[in-house]
Amino acid sequence: MTKKKVQTAITPAKLNRIIPKGKLLAIGGKEDKGEGQPDEKPENINFISEQVLKRFVAELRGDNPMVLVIPTASEIPEESSQDYVTLFKELGVTNVQVADIRNRPDANLPEYLEMIKNAAGIMFTGGDQLRLTAIFGGSDALQAMKERYIYSNIIIAGTSAGAAAMSTPMIYEGESQGGYIKGDVRMTTGLEFLKNVAIDTHFLTRGRIVRMTQAICTNPECIGIGLEEDTAILVTDGGKMEVVGSGLVTVVDGMGITESNIYEIENGQPFTAKGLRVHLLGNEDTYLIPAYERLQLQ
Amino acid sequence: MTKKKVQTAITPAKLNRIIPKGKLLAIGGKEDKGEGQPDEKPENINFISEQVLKRFVAELRGDNPMVLVIPTASEIPEESSQDYVTLFKELGVTNVQVADIRNRPDANLPEYLEMIKNAAGIMFTGGDQLRLTAIFGGSDALQAMKERYIYSNIIIAGTSAGAAAMSTPMIYEGESQGGYIKGDVRMTTGLEFLKNVAIDTHFLTRGRIVRMTQAICTNPECIGIGLEEDTAILVTDGGKMEVVGSGLVTVVDGMGITESNIYEIENGQPFTAKGLRVHLLGNEDTYLIPAYERLQLQ
Repeated sequence: MTKKKVQTAITPAKLNRIIPKGKLLAIGGKEDKGEGQPDEKPENINFISEQVLKRFVAELRGDNPMVLVIPTASEIPEESSQDYVTLFKELGVTNVQVADIRNRPDANLPEYLEMIKNAAGIMFTGGDQLRLTAIFGGSDALQAMKERYIYSNIIIAGTSAGAAAMSTPMIYEGESQGGYIKGDVRMTTGLEFLKNVAIDTHFLTRGRIVRMTQAICTNPECIGIGLEEDTAILVTDGGKMEVVGSGLVTVVDGMGITESNIYEIENGQPFTAKGLRVHLLGNEDTYLIPAYERLQLQ
Repeated sequence: MTKKKVQTAITPAKLNRIIPKGKLLAIGGKEDKGEGQPDEKPENINFISEQVLKRFVAELRGDNPMVLVIPTASEIPEESSQDYVTLFKELGVTNVQVADIRNRPDANLPEYLEMIKNAAGIMFTGGDQLRLTAIFGGSDALQAMKERYIYSNIIIAGTSAGAAAMSTPMIYEGESQGGYIKGDVRMTTGLEFLKNVAIDTHFLTRGRIVRMTQAICTNPECIGIGLEEDTAILVTDGGKMEVVGSGLVTVVDGMGITESNIYEIENGQPFTAKGLRVHLLGNEDTYLIPAYERLQLQ
């Protein structure tokens, strides 16, 4: 008699997953670096590298593709969206529209759902990611975007706050200079075009690897993706990732953590973790997001 | 010509969802009420109503069904699990085993995966929910449980911390007495047997509706379920909920929120919200979790 083998790996058939037909482009953004300026400062699109935005345009499908700019994260939505309208036109996109959704009732208006239905590409501007989840969470507009992402060849992009909100969980407030104190990192669920991924931006220049590690320690099912400025990830098939841009992408993988004190200490105490794996990826590097190969609840 | 109708509702065919075959039982728990005792105090099972545990036993399927006790949330795992072994035997379950998983390496051991594979029911004890996500997140044991939950007729139960960790997002630290200050509620992703649901326990007696509302405001895609002591929800088909027990279940639905200042204020300031819907449900009441009917990423 042979000993019964324990089945641990999930067979591909069992994954039985809906692979989204759409693509995602999460851009690290780059804000002015004046001393003391908050992360929430509206994104200045002049700093986004042309390489990244040209890739966005190159991924648009269909004849005379329409790009929809969503400036909801920004506190100056008219200015933010007008910048993108001008920029995309310079890059050869003739049909650029703006869904100037400013609150939750707006996010259920049929005119915006119609725009989402017709868009070949969507661009979320920078600003504050908490505006995106608090306004779009549970809305018809978000459902319409998910339907497009799962069932059509749309590309959905976001920069800075727009990138952070794409995935779940979402970090929305934290101590950039440290993050080693338990409780200093605030998270909620994101818009969930990706899951079990936490995206953070301005990653290396602002030393955010520690606050990311704290987020990962609380549930290592999730991996952290730190986007450097002028750098993006293009996600296809729901979890295949390619780096686009001049900077680095940092992957923080906590699945192999062997020890952490995060559940033994009180808020306000420093946390520790052993066994973290970190990958630094550059332009054209690829990576398969681990959740892609793991059984998930739909 | 008729005006083109905007498709907003998701058609059932488009949901194309895997409906889990398993069931969930999330129990509100009841800890000693001594002044100043933390929520993390290990669960005293004597306080769980017999009605709830008898329902758990009644839902077990198969001949001589095995119940697996997982005391990982508890700081006194031997004591916690022994209490349950005794209790289930009193309720007529002859085959009770314990998966005494204490750290992340344990959560990948074949002996525990074998137990999970053979269990008809799983019971997560109380303790600290952050222990559950930090230890099980990304583990083989969690994958094995998800496989059982999705593809078999297992029942997975948890009390107090064990209930809070079942769903995502998961509240793991907060100001019970208030929660109206932005930043006072700490969340991460849970074990995700349910999603877009935040479960909190000891709900009305400890005035936790405000901290729950803050959690919901950050992303109203998620609904809050507040479990009273001695009260549980039984979840079937991945999202159909039935109340079991002597107390109330509070549903906090933020999808209709029209205004909130949560994204306009800094941490440390009081938040506001308008348009919240609240349901108070009692024994045998049913409720369909909204995420069940919404398009989700797998």
